[in-house]
Amino acid sequence: MTGKLIIFEGVEGCGKTSQIEHCREWLQNLGISPIVTREPGGTELGVHLRQLLLSSGGSPINDKTELLLYAADRAQHVEQQLKPHLEQGKIILCDRFTDSTIAYQGYGRKLDMNLINQLNAIATAGLTSDLTFWLDVDAEIGLGRKKSDADRIEQEKIDFHLQVQQGYTELAAKYPERISRIEASLSEEAVQQQIQKILTLKLENWGYPK
Amino acid sequence: MTGKLIIFEGVEGCGKTSQIEHCREWLQNLGISPIVTREPGGTELGVHLRQLLLSSGGSPINDKTELLLYAADRAQHVEQQLKPHLEQGKIILCDRFTDSTIAYQGYGRKLDMNLINQLNAIATAGLTSDLTFWLDVDAEIGLGRKKSDADRIEQEKIDFHLQVQQGYTELAAKYPERISRIEASLSEEAVQQQIQKILTLKLENWGYPK
Repeated sequence: MTGKLIIFEGVEGCGKTSQIEHCREWLQNLGISPIVTREPGGTELGVHLRQLLLSSGGSPINDKTELLLYAADRAQHVEQQLKPHLEQGKIILCDRFTDSTIAYQGYGRKLDMNLINQLNAIATAGLTSDLTFWLDVDAEIGLGRKKSDADRIEQEKIDFHLQVQQGYTELAAKYPERISRIEASLSEEAVQQQIQKILTLKLENWGYPK
Repeated sequence: MTGKLIIFEGVEGCGKTSQIEHCREWLQNLGISPIVTREPGGTELGVHLRQLLLSSGGSPINDKTELLLYAADRAQHVEQQLKPHLEQGKIILCDRFTDSTIAYQGYGRKLDMNLINQLNAIATAGLTSDLTFWLDVDAEIGLGRKKSDADRIEQEKIDFHLQVQQGYTELAAKYPERISRIEASLSEEAVQQQIQKILTLKLENWGYPK
């Protein structure tokens, strides 16, 4: 695996999508063509699973079922997208990965953390991120940024989102080497500057552009 | 759990669907109204998952992803259908359950049996069948009975189906108390007679009709 897996994490409305897009443009200007992808929904099958997971009008999904569907999406994504591109030496910018499952299903829904770790291990086959940006913004501020047509997850009560935020806080404290906290309540430009500063150092260490 | 879970297993074309239908009618004549269901696809969500799993025109599904999708379908089915009906004292006739995963994904696809057992345990939360009918027919005969518009599983090579058949043979030898072998190469009527004979004794032991 000569490529690098960079994950963007955070609560709803933390600005992942915009920041990934800015990052992609910035990397392209440096002569690096990153792969941009996401979970759930980073594969053809995953698009269907994402629809089942996020559609708010569908049948109620049991907590354990939800966890297994995220794991199925991830297993497919790891095998079809992440591993092949990492083997080709690509830089991957990915919207959400295993930390989301820990934060949302573990801290948010209070599902058994052993089960979550077990399924994350099955789905990733040991693949971990090389760098994770945690876009840290208060859950209330993040939700306030979202549009009115909220999906199933966004519709959860504020307590749920506060627990998710707590999850990210604890993960960042536990894995300081892997997870970089970004102050995401600032302007889009200021957030991107923080990301680029960290990434510039990392790219140098990793020997990019190659 | 005062109800009873009766599973029908076997290779493609073994006659499960017809036998379950005959069984339903026979039980109704005895004053018992069974619940008829199946895996995958026994819930609203499961219908979508069944479509993803069996559609032959879709994107290729990674082996581990397939296993996780079957587990997701099962977890939803156990929580939304099987457990509630068993708690109400119902007799359930179910087309496929955990043995299918062992036979198809374990023996057929040679996936890690520990992983299969782990996922079966997660999905069922310990629920096991009270009685499993294994409709034993040669894989070649079974496949010959199927129509031309074969789904993704039916399209597998004959070697795959022979391995699946071997899986059922070993399961039946390992769990003789739970699994009843039915000689399924005979006429529909003769197959149904074998099933009714075994079921008559079981129902008496279980105290049905209540």
